[in-house]
Amino acid sequence: MKYKNYEDVAVELPKVDGIKDVTIRWLISDKDGAKNFAMRLFEVGPGGYTPWHQHEWEHEMFVLEGSGKAMKEGGEIEFKAGDVFFIEPWEWHNFKNTGKSTVKFLCLIPYLKKDQ
Amino acid sequence: MKYKNYEDVAVELPKVDGIKDVTIRWLISDKDGAKNFAMRLFEVGPGGYTPWHQHEWEHEMFVLEGSGKAMKEGGEIEFKAGDVFFIEPWEWHNFKNTGKSTVKFLCLIPYLKKDQ
Repeated sequence: MKYKNYEDVAVELPKVDGIKDVTIRWLISDKDGAKNFAMRLFEVGPGGYTPWHQHEWEHEMFVLEGSGKAMKEGGEIEFKAGDVFFIEPWEWHNFKNTGKSTVKFLCLIPYLKKDQ
Repeated sequence: MKYKNYEDVAVELPKVDGIKDVTIRWLISDKDGAKNFAMRLFEVGPGGYTPWHQHEWEHEMFVLEGSGKAMKEGGEIEFKAGDVFFIEPWEWHNFKNTGKSTVKFLCLIPYLKKDQ
């Protein structure tokens, strides 16, 4: 049983272009022994955004604090705390903080196996 | 992109013995197209507890609200909102609400592949 508070996990800058005022904490990863999926916590400042991108892995997300807009091809969705997103593989997406306080959300991703 | 608020997801009773005042909502599951892992939200009332058990799959957990004690073989850990747990496969565990308000936590589990 590994235990920590999210605030004790190092804050890192995502290694990706096209972002503004975004940090990431890897709360549970392969370094903890997780073999199937990883839990990350993102913080996005007011006016900030994650990249408009797509990739082969899915996202499972839970919004902890704040509000903003999720962008997808052909539309957008306003979100707030308590909202849940499932982003399918290869789906284009990004997330913008349109509120006045920091957006915090969990975003989990799989460790993809070679047979997939 | 599938979107919902956690409160819009049906409340169910876990099909397991040895629990008290526990509900589960399957926020993201294979019904949403998730192939690798599932996100559930548990609520445990004051004085309630999840079962003392073990299983072959791991847990990745994030405490959203409330406080209590996580029990493991040979010890216990007090938890509060913002805390994170990684429960390894076959590790004995349960969670007790020792506070005055409802404990809410996310608990994610893998969909185990036959080759694992």
